[in-house]
Amino acid sequence: MPETKPIRVPESEIKNRIRSIQKEMDAAGIEGLLVIQRVDLFYFSGTSQNGILYIPVSGAPLLMVKRYFPRAKSESAIRDTVEIGSVKELSHRIRDAFGSLPSVLGLELDVLPVREFEFFKKLLCPKQIKDASPIILDLRRIKSIWEIGQMEKTAEMSRLTFEYMRTMIRPGISEMEFAGMYETFARRHGHAGMLRDRNFQGGGAYSWHVLSGESGGMPGVLDAAASGEGTSAAFPSGAGNRRLERNEPIMVDFGSVRHGYHMDETRMFAIGSMPAEAQKASRAAIEIHDAVLERARPGAVTGDLFRYSVDLAEKLGYGDQYLGPRGHQVRFIGHGIGLELIEPPIIAQGKTDLLEPGMTFALEPKMVFQGAFAAGVESVFQVTTAGSRLISTVPVDIFIC
Amino acid sequence: MPETKPIRVPESEIKNRIRSIQKEMDAAGIEGLLVIQRVDLFYFSGTSQNGILYIPVSGAPLLMVKRYFPRAKSESAIRDTVEIGSVKELSHRIRDAFGSLPSVLGLELDVLPVREFEFFKKLLCPKQIKDASPIILDLRRIKSIWEIGQMEKTAEMSRLTFEYMRTMIRPGISEMEFAGMYETFARRHGHAGMLRDRNFQGGGAYSWHVLSGESGGMPGVLDAAASGEGTSAAFPSGAGNRRLERNEPIMVDFGSVRHGYHMDETRMFAIGSMPAEAQKASRAAIEIHDAVLERARPGAVTGDLFRYSVDLAEKLGYGDQYLGPRGHQVRFIGHGIGLELIEPPIIAQGKTDLLEPGMTFALEPKMVFQGAFAAGVESVFQVTTAGSRLISTVPVDIFIC
Repeated sequence: MPETKPIRVPESEIKNRIRSIQKEMDAAGIEGLLVIQRVDLFYFSGTSQNGILYIPVSGAPLLMVKRYFPRAKSESAIRDTVEIGSVKELSHRIRDAFGSLPSVLGLELDVLPVREFEFFKKLLCPKQIKDASPIILDLRRIKSIWEIGQMEKTAEMSRLTFEYMRTMIRPGISEMEFAGMYETFARRHGHAGMLRDRNFQGGGAYSWHVLSGESGGMPGVLDAAASGEGTSAAFPSGAGNRRLERNEPIMVDFGSVRHGYHMDETRMFAIGSMPAEAQKASRAAIEIHDAVLERARPGAVTGDLFRYSVDLAEKLGYGDQYLGPRGHQVRFIGHGIGLELIEPPIIAQGKTDLLEPGMTFALEPKMVFQGAFAAGVESVFQVTTAGSRLISTVPVDIFIC
Repeated sequence: MPETKPIRVPESEIKNRIRSIQKEMDAAGIEGLLVIQRVDLFYFSGTSQNGILYIPVSGAPLLMVKRYFPRAKSESAIRDTVEIGSVKELSHRIRDAFGSLPSVLGLELDVLPVREFEFFKKLLCPKQIKDASPIILDLRRIKSIWEIGQMEKTAEMSRLTFEYMRTMIRPGISEMEFAGMYETFARRHGHAGMLRDRNFQGGGAYSWHVLSGESGGMPGVLDAAASGEGTSAAFPSGAGNRRLERNEPIMVDFGSVRHGYHMDETRMFAIGSMPAEAQKASRAAIEIHDAVLERARPGAVTGDLFRYSVDLAEKLGYGDQYLGPRGHQVRFIGHGIGLELIEPPIIAQGKTDLLEPGMTFALEPKMVFQGAFAAGVESVFQVTTAGSRLISTVPVDIFIC
């Protein structure tokens, strides 16, 4: 059962993160940074109440909370925390605390809508505004030991949930109902229900990516090998109303989140038996998964790992299905994961990022047989000083139930 | 059970919407509009695949689909639909189809991130960019008969789900588990799982706003009377790990969505009995709800309805609890609802919008007794030519189970 005692982000974590971002701000010529997006705010302050954190390039940050101050105060290790009635107060609060407003202001331009941007520009009148998202996301790539510990707890929740799936999967229930059942189990163990991502379109981060039989063979809206059918044209991906059947391949891609930290894991299921072709493809996906993991170590180039996996898939005879049906293939096999379901770096075609110790990735080699089914596997791993290790503890196997 | 046959947005709907927005574009001096946000795209095209709709101020619109073209083509009544490999193709696609690029371009500036904005600005080089969100949202306020029909189907799904809650609510299960159970039931009847809103922060639109006992007495991050405890500081609202108990007030605020259209309904539950104070407050909320509904008719001023409800709450003795504990009160009692959970207009303090036939609102008078409990009710109603009528069909009552 989930701890009932609230977990507080330790003060040492917050201090390290502030210190690190200030170094990056200095290098980027950013005098002051407004942390507005709620996940970034949680990262730098430990609270995700309605507020904004101002980080000066040197000195102590100032947390300004609109709603609800007592909770923000008790959750956050930031010492200078004030209550504000309106965001308009930011200008005089910052001026009062730091003597002046920053002439070069950092904002999260990958997520901040234009209208909000114009508001802050007018309010703080900086000489220049710089995009601070790259330095924030760069910092977030490397997880601390404390963060890895959090992810391990989410992994344990997910492992239990996959075990539960094995006991209750059955023919006749719909993909959506099956997902509801395992999500309910996961929530009993701390799953928070809503996955986070930075895509302003929404619609891509959810826990019910169940693709049974031919649902797995449908390309669609997502930048993913298989999108599934979804429940309607208004939400055209993930689980739909199709009922699970015996003796068909069923892909369950379960994204989960506990205390802010995500896991993202895929396993193949079948009730009764799995057709030989699907079983063979699932085994090939596991072979690619294991082979990439072996090569995942500090210094490895993300683009090389991608290329290696494509070569291996072709060698195994899956050139026409790997990462999507020919013509609709995606160009990545993995993505960073942490406080958001999808974070940089991406293990993708042509990328030159190097793996570093403390990075965490979801690795997801998948095949799609158009109109027929999907097969694949997904685990979360951590780059260590020596190589890599799985954070996921779900057995890397095919589940015939 | 949900229809398995996909529902297609009728061509007549799409044509009306395009015609109406073109009239507004003309009045606003917008020569061409890019519909980028996925919900707006669904509204104007009938598909929410990965694509962008270009609407010229006169003439036929052009739907450009990146992924997945065959599904977009089959879902959308837009006739001119082309497949694109990259969003960069937009400039030549628009130039080819319309002879030139628009000199005044409309974009959805309330949701479009700065980085996307800069991309489109550079790509299309308009003389001027105008915020098109106000005219889009203005149009979406008035629902067609077809849209009301869709909302009625969501209402039926929600009614069944509230009935189900009454049969299975029990002490000992956590708020989150209870929510998972009823959401699973709702998904069996077409609930799509993810609610949509326009807030770039996310975190405010979910189906598990279950506040039991003192969880109801917690102000928090949300611009809502009661935020609940949530599962952690990373997601500090809605249902938490608290277990439901006998003889306490339990507020269930269930937002749901089916085929893109939302409902948002709140009822008070108790297992065994409800303390007299909570029961009295729940009855008062119903009295306010009914009295506001009586005054909701074309021409009514939203700010007046708000004020009227506050006066009535004070007369009933709830001045210190109405819409939140004193000092943390919210300043609205209702919000538009449709393809997004929260849409304009808002029935709020000082607002001068007039009710018009075809508008749909969630009306939610609530009281919060800080540290103790919340009480309230919420229904969705439609403004008719003569007055208003409930779309919600859940009995307006307190459920003692």
